[in-house]
Amino acid sequence: MSSGKEIGLTVRKEENFSDWYGQLVLKSGLADYGSTKGALILRPYGYSIWESIREIFDKYLKDTGHENGFLPVMIPEALLKKEEEHFKGFNSEVFWVTRAGTNNLSESLALRPTSETIAYWAFARWISSYRDLPLKINFWNSALRAEIKATKPLIRNSEFLWQEGHTVHESSEDAQKEVNLILGLYKKLIEEYLAIPVRQGLKSNQEKFVGAVSTASLESLMGDGRALQMATSHHLGQNFSKPFEIKYLGRDNTEQYAWQTSWGTSWRLIGAVAMIHGDNKGLILPPKIAPIQVIIIPIHKKADEGLVKEHTKYVLMDLEKANIRARIDERDEYTAGWKFNDWELRGVPLRINVGPKDIEKSKLEISRRDTREKITIGRNELVQTICSLLNQIQNDLYTKAKEFLSSNTTPAFDFETFKKIISEKGGFITARWCGRDFCETQIKEQTGADIRIIPEDDDSIMENIECVFCRQKPSVRVLFARAY
Amino acid sequence: MSSGKEIGLTVRKEENFSDWYGQLVLKSGLADYGSTKGALILRPYGYSIWESIREIFDKYLKDTGHENGFLPVMIPEALLKKEEEHFKGFNSEVFWVTRAGTNNLSESLALRPTSETIAYWAFARWISSYRDLPLKINFWNSALRAEIKATKPLIRNSEFLWQEGHTVHESSEDAQKEVNLILGLYKKLIEEYLAIPVRQGLKSNQEKFVGAVSTASLESLMGDGRALQMATSHHLGQNFSKPFEIKYLGRDNTEQYAWQTSWGTSWRLIGAVAMIHGDNKGLILPPKIAPIQVIIIPIHKKADEGLVKEHTKYVLMDLEKANIRARIDERDEYTAGWKFNDWELRGVPLRINVGPKDIEKSKLEISRRDTREKITIGRNELVQTICSLLNQIQNDLYTKAKEFLSSNTTPAFDFETFKKIISEKGGFITARWCGRDFCETQIKEQTGADIRIIPEDDDSIMENIECVFCRQKPSVRVLFARAY
Repeated sequence: MSSGKEIGLTVRKEENFSDWYGQLVLKSGLADYGSTKGALILRPYGYSIWESIREIFDKYLKDTGHENGFLPVMIPEALLKKEEEHFKGFNSEVFWVTRAGTNNLSESLALRPTSETIAYWAFARWISSYRDLPLKINFWNSALRAEIKATKPLIRNSEFLWQEGHTVHESSEDAQKEVNLILGLYKKLIEEYLAIPVRQGLKSNQEKFVGAVSTASLESLMGDGRALQMATSHHLGQNFSKPFEIKYLGRDNTEQYAWQTSWGTSWRLIGAVAMIHGDNKGLILPPKIAPIQVIIIPIHKKADEGLVKEHTKYVLMDLEKANIRARIDERDEYTAGWKFNDWELRGVPLRINVGPKDIEKSKLEISRRDTREKITIGRNELVQTICSLLNQIQNDLYTKAKEFLSSNTTPAFDFETFKKIISEKGGFITARWCGRDFCETQIKEQTGADIRIIPEDDDSIMENIECVFCRQKPSVRVLFARAY
Repeated sequence: MSSGKEIGLTVRKEENFSDWYGQLVLKSGLADYGSTKGALILRPYGYSIWESIREIFDKYLKDTGHENGFLPVMIPEALLKKEEEHFKGFNSEVFWVTRAGTNNLSESLALRPTSETIAYWAFARWISSYRDLPLKINFWNSALRAEIKATKPLIRNSEFLWQEGHTVHESSEDAQKEVNLILGLYKKLIEEYLAIPVRQGLKSNQEKFVGAVSTASLESLMGDGRALQMATSHHLGQNFSKPFEIKYLGRDNTEQYAWQTSWGTSWRLIGAVAMIHGDNKGLILPPKIAPIQVIIIPIHKKADEGLVKEHTKYVLMDLEKANIRARIDERDEYTAGWKFNDWELRGVPLRINVGPKDIEKSKLEISRRDTREKITIGRNELVQTICSLLNQIQNDLYTKAKEFLSSNTTPAFDFETFKKIISEKGGFITARWCGRDFCETQIKEQTGADIRIIPEDDDSIMENIECVFCRQKPSVRVLFARAY
């Protein structure tokens, strides 16, 4: 018996990456398109990955003294305009509420593109003394931005799930420590749980967050050689505390403007997991965030049904006792072959087939989703083997992605080479840059590549190496890429 | 040393309930007003209660086979209009997005007043066969409604946190089972965790959810004798599946319209906790949902500081080992007296004072927030006593609220008595009703009370008792009240 539905991917990753990714997101059940341009619905399978990510990062935040809160999605126009540069940066992509019922509103209300303005309007009331600092609040919500460019599920949507953290400190140094702390937590989340290696550094002046003093960013490389900004952490200095009048009475009894940070990451992390680890059979989920780590498939004829089904329950129980997220696929209306394809598409790390022969011989057949390797083990080795395989897969996915990142990071010492790499190979280009907006803009216009980060582990300014574009000195080393 | 800030409530509950409640919500740190009419910001203290509620109810949902998802907040006008009655019911309070950046949108987008329309638009694509049923998805999000009536923090806001569940079934009976299952889960949450007794029953035709076949509801009584709808569970029949074309191929191989339910509860549960259990000193939180169950206050002069602080850490460790949510108030800049008031205001169930004399005698002084009773115990009885006191408080709060509910539920056999009770005492009135819209409307217009529920445990239609308004027979027993 078969469902008749075409469930597999009909486009190959290496042939048309964009279509492959679109099919992957939809057919694996991660998400579905919404009913307006750029809108996305997160289906339960995708949402449960978001729940994993949220649970991990929320614990990090709480362990480091952050708390959660809730802010309204509608921000009055006057508030959004208060920090000029910030407003200019978001103005073109803000959704405006102008009517309630049949009444026109006297002031238009913006849907939050981000919550700095409304949060800091409130913080100003909550803070009066150094005793109220540091204030460290995070919001798990969604942000809304009318995307003018092409939209892409989970990567660029008119509304997206994210978290945005906002903190207030007594000094610039404290704010800087917070920026670094948070970037480190993002890195841990992304590398250890999502198995995605990142490059870390500062944004250029043109690419930093609108209204920030500086933006630290984590960048990864997707399967098609384009970069993706994974998470950012901004030092806001006193750029917002001044217009929003976030003042506090200092320990020295003088009134001072506070120092602030904001930082965020979004459901694009799920998109990155799909793009980096996925293959032509579907998703490949890192075990640590996979909603289902092991799928158990009963394989039987009518005569063996009772025996096999009972045995799958024992297998499940053993796995659950070891805190492994396992499930039996009990859908009698589908064939085993259909189920194999379905779970491969959904990226479940391990599959266990249970048939009458296996039971008779006290054996089990395990299939790895990532390598599609099959292993036969003794029934009594089950838990130990599964645990070690899950670890192995987690590590292998990271190693593979790390190798991809390394082999797609290429140095360019002159602009001809730069252009050649961008058009033929893509990926990250390490190159020298003089620090001027002019060269950055020219490179972007001529190649589509922009400065992703100025690595913090840079070997400092080198007097003797020239900017890849203008050939002037001195220069810093930066990472360029075409990006999503 | 004192903060100089006025932290206590300056209005008494029994004198001006509404102002008392407003102060309570703001001064306890639960919430703060937003910057537009009816908008509310949930501060970390309030949000952590919401997190408790979410965690408990989310587990109930997952244990009964529900999954979470995400839906966009913007719903195209055409979709919202698809089920006529539904649209009529919400039309006057819908916020409309009409502009993105500087461009006017070709179709106005509604901010979700509730998500039936967008969810079912998607469900229609996801469901094709009985194999896809039941579909049971929940959304933790916020809903937006432009409130024309007076707003009230946590009770009536232009945006509020809630969950909305949406399910699809093969039969009306299955849908009815779901409605009942969910109502039972809400009841358990509200009674066992929030210590709030509820009355359960069906809404009248006029009061049911717009678009539903029937609405089951849980109602409670607030401290001022007004009723509050705590949670509702709707049987939608095929009222939405027909306009949205949610069809499935049945087990009998014929195409059929599906049967649906939707249900929700919101952050108003936090408001109810405040209104029911709170007193003139502030909040009183039921231990099961209190973010902090025990606050430890070190009391010392300079000479004893080291000794006392060290001892509070041991007390904390003992409590934490027993999974009790405890915290030490280490703010040196505040006096012990100021701290007592602060934690009373915030409703922490138990306070432990630790001073040098207590340490010397191996004693501890414990204060109950609800009764303000002080108990001195031996240091070695700590964990056992705290556990039993937390249980005791949880039960006592429920019992007290239950007694309040009983003593404020009054029968009325004639309309004069009915009016007298409403104007003098308030609370629930049990009365007979003929079932006609006319009488229901007249009663509401003349008294402000409406039918809260038709109890399901009714002793059925009694031929011999007359409607409290029109004196006609037969009638059913219903609960009337003025409500929020």
